[in-house]
Amino acid sequence: MERCDILGALSDEPDHLTRYFAGNAIRLANDHVEAWMREAGMVVRRDNIGNLRGRYDSTPTGSSTVMLGSHLDTVRDAGKYDGPLGVVVAIAAVQRLYDGKTQLPFALEVIAFADEEGLRFGSTYLGSRAVAGSFDLADLDRTDDGGITMADAIRAFGGDPARLAEDKWRAGTLLGYCEVHIEQGPVLESRGLPVGIVSAIAGQARYHLTFTGEAGHAGTVPMNARRDALGAAAELVLAVEADARSHDGVVATVGQVEVHPGASNVIPGKVELSLDIRHAEDSVRIERARKIIDRANEIATRRHVKVAYELLGENPSVPCSPRLVSSLTKAVEQQGLPVVHLASGAGHDAVTMAALTDVGMLFVRCKGGISHNPAESVEAADVGVAIDVLSRFLELLAKA
Amino acid sequence: MERCDILGALSDEPDHLTRYFAGNAIRLANDHVEAWMREAGMVVRRDNIGNLRGRYDSTPTGSSTVMLGSHLDTVRDAGKYDGPLGVVVAIAAVQRLYDGKTQLPFALEVIAFADEEGLRFGSTYLGSRAVAGSFDLADLDRTDDGGITMADAIRAFGGDPARLAEDKWRAGTLLGYCEVHIEQGPVLESRGLPVGIVSAIAGQARYHLTFTGEAGHAGTVPMNARRDALGAAAELVLAVEADARSHDGVVATVGQVEVHPGASNVIPGKVELSLDIRHAEDSVRIERARKIIDRANEIATRRHVKVAYELLGENPSVPCSPRLVSSLTKAVEQQGLPVVHLASGAGHDAVTMAALTDVGMLFVRCKGGISHNPAESVEAADVGVAIDVLSRFLELLAKA
Repeated sequence: MERCDILGALSDEPDHLTRYFAGNAIRLANDHVEAWMREAGMVVRRDNIGNLRGRYDSTPTGSSTVMLGSHLDTVRDAGKYDGPLGVVVAIAAVQRLYDGKTQLPFALEVIAFADEEGLRFGSTYLGSRAVAGSFDLADLDRTDDGGITMADAIRAFGGDPARLAEDKWRAGTLLGYCEVHIEQGPVLESRGLPVGIVSAIAGQARYHLTFTGEAGHAGTVPMNARRDALGAAAELVLAVEADARSHDGVVATVGQVEVHPGASNVIPGKVELSLDIRHAEDSVRIERARKIIDRANEIATRRHVKVAYELLGENPSVPCSPRLVSSLTKAVEQQGLPVVHLASGAGHDAVTMAALTDVGMLFVRCKGGISHNPAESVEAADVGVAIDVLSRFLELLAKA
Repeated sequence: MERCDILGALSDEPDHLTRYFAGNAIRLANDHVEAWMREAGMVVRRDNIGNLRGRYDSTPTGSSTVMLGSHLDTVRDAGKYDGPLGVVVAIAAVQRLYDGKTQLPFALEVIAFADEEGLRFGSTYLGSRAVAGSFDLADLDRTDDGGITMADAIRAFGGDPARLAEDKWRAGTLLGYCEVHIEQGPVLESRGLPVGIVSAIAGQARYHLTFTGEAGHAGTVPMNARRDALGAAAELVLAVEADARSHDGVVATVGQVEVHPGASNVIPGKVELSLDIRHAEDSVRIERARKIIDRANEIATRRHVKVAYELLGENPSVPCSPRLVSSLTKAVEQQGLPVVHLASGAGHDAVTMAALTDVGMLFVRCKGGISHNPAESVEAADVGVAIDVLSRFLELLAKA
């Protein structure tokens, strides 16, 4: 908790916590984390993208590795736990092994990723993409708000953009990547549980829909002669909500609505809206999206308006490894705690890492399910449970 | 029709029709209209606010007066008929009297109002307010987009802002004000009628409503844990529509919606929306607004969100004079046409003039109910009917 407080005080902006890729605050954060890693017996290096990588090798051979970690960057006006908690919990688990002189049949690598949120360059997962080998070199030409290219930012931070390929994991067999993270949702709190095991990171699709009716004078066009685009949009908003509510685990959100022309005395002629739909199983998500689009067409036909839609982006779901989920489950059980498996609705470094190795995630209860907000809050006791579970998880992997 | 075309070519902006208060285009329009008025036997003067006032007095005494007219200013990117049609139809009716040497027991005053739309200074009805004596002198300090005060604009146009009180009607008994205007709605077109008689100018109330729920992550907050402000707003949009549809003559419009924070991956925490509600009878409008507010409260309670509302403005309805409606009705009947009475959902100079004298209005069918748009269109034959009806109306008043 203290360590999260220390990191939480390191910001690139005054008055609130904002720590972006390759900025001064993350450099200071890395200094702290590097010291903590060394204290836990790790050999530490910074790679070219700017990840801090601490290696703990209790065995002489070091033929295989388990990765732990999370990210140190934040969103703007962030909380203290989204990212850093996973790093400090991983270090704490290694510290216990080091203090207990525990031998494991594999090495550990704790990674503090340099960018997950994508605040500075609008491109997420820079740190884990470099490690997983999926970094897109075209991103190096992206510029931040100050006109600095990503390549220059990497150089200024001490990395060599020409050697990013060297950040990719090549040091032998990987047994998996396990990330501890705050839940960012209210499920654990509502069930009264300190931790939960992630079954999958939900897939996501983002759509843009446009209803086009006919604008008109709010005073002179009778109700039965209207083709109000907002009426159609309102029906769809409720249909999206009802559909998601009636299908377990589906979340669907209309977060943006733009009404044209947007005058109080003009009937809306056009309404644009966003649709974000997620589920742990891609087939379920795809089926719900199809039903919602069908519903939009039905609404449009009935109301004599037009509807157009566009799929802006789609990320398939990332299932967590059954092997790692099983070990995490046993670790939770051995703490005498009820087990809950839940899907992660948000993306994490584990999404990218899944292309490299098996992934597992442990969620920690957070107050009110609030994240990306200074009000982000976790209990010290829950963090203790997370360290216990992660330590037990490593022991179980060692025995497997 | 030719005269509307001539006026339609006089614009303060290139490529589209925009004719604002005390601008160059309205000066040129006044020159044309003044010539037409003189041609119809009228004595013409410009008053201080910039109205053109043509007086036709076929009687020696001239002890009482009937006013006719409409406005010559337009909205931005306007059509040719909203306003000017009423002026040219009135002049055409006087022309017939003059040509036929018809004696009437009252004088006629045709007024081409200088401002009804309020485009330049954001304050409507400047012309008719000066005549009716309801001009607010505080408005003289208003500035246009170029920083020119209304007082300076009036001076530049040839008027004296210190003498606006002299524009108020003081020349004896007024028998009424009758305005011909395009309908700006689809009712006459849908009934296949060239003209209709306005029973009242609808009253209007404008509200601002805010639903406040809780913002949250679109991926991590399950559907049953959400307090989505947009869901509540969508219900209200549909409730507004359904309520107005089920109450004859009510029009209710949500024309503005603002969603906060307005990101595709964030559950809306706050939604603001506008509500415009109109009806010819104030008691009906007030009752519907009350029911809609009740409904907003019910939605908010059920969804565990908050709702706040504010009445931004309210204009009572202006009933047309039964005497003038009766004469207009007889005039229409004597043309062998079916009679339709309808409420005007839009405001007109007649609203202001109602404080001075009895008002009546005759609507002319317009294509598709479209107005405030270059696509505004009327049929020459319908304009002919309007001139016939207005002429007959004056004859009937003379006999009454």
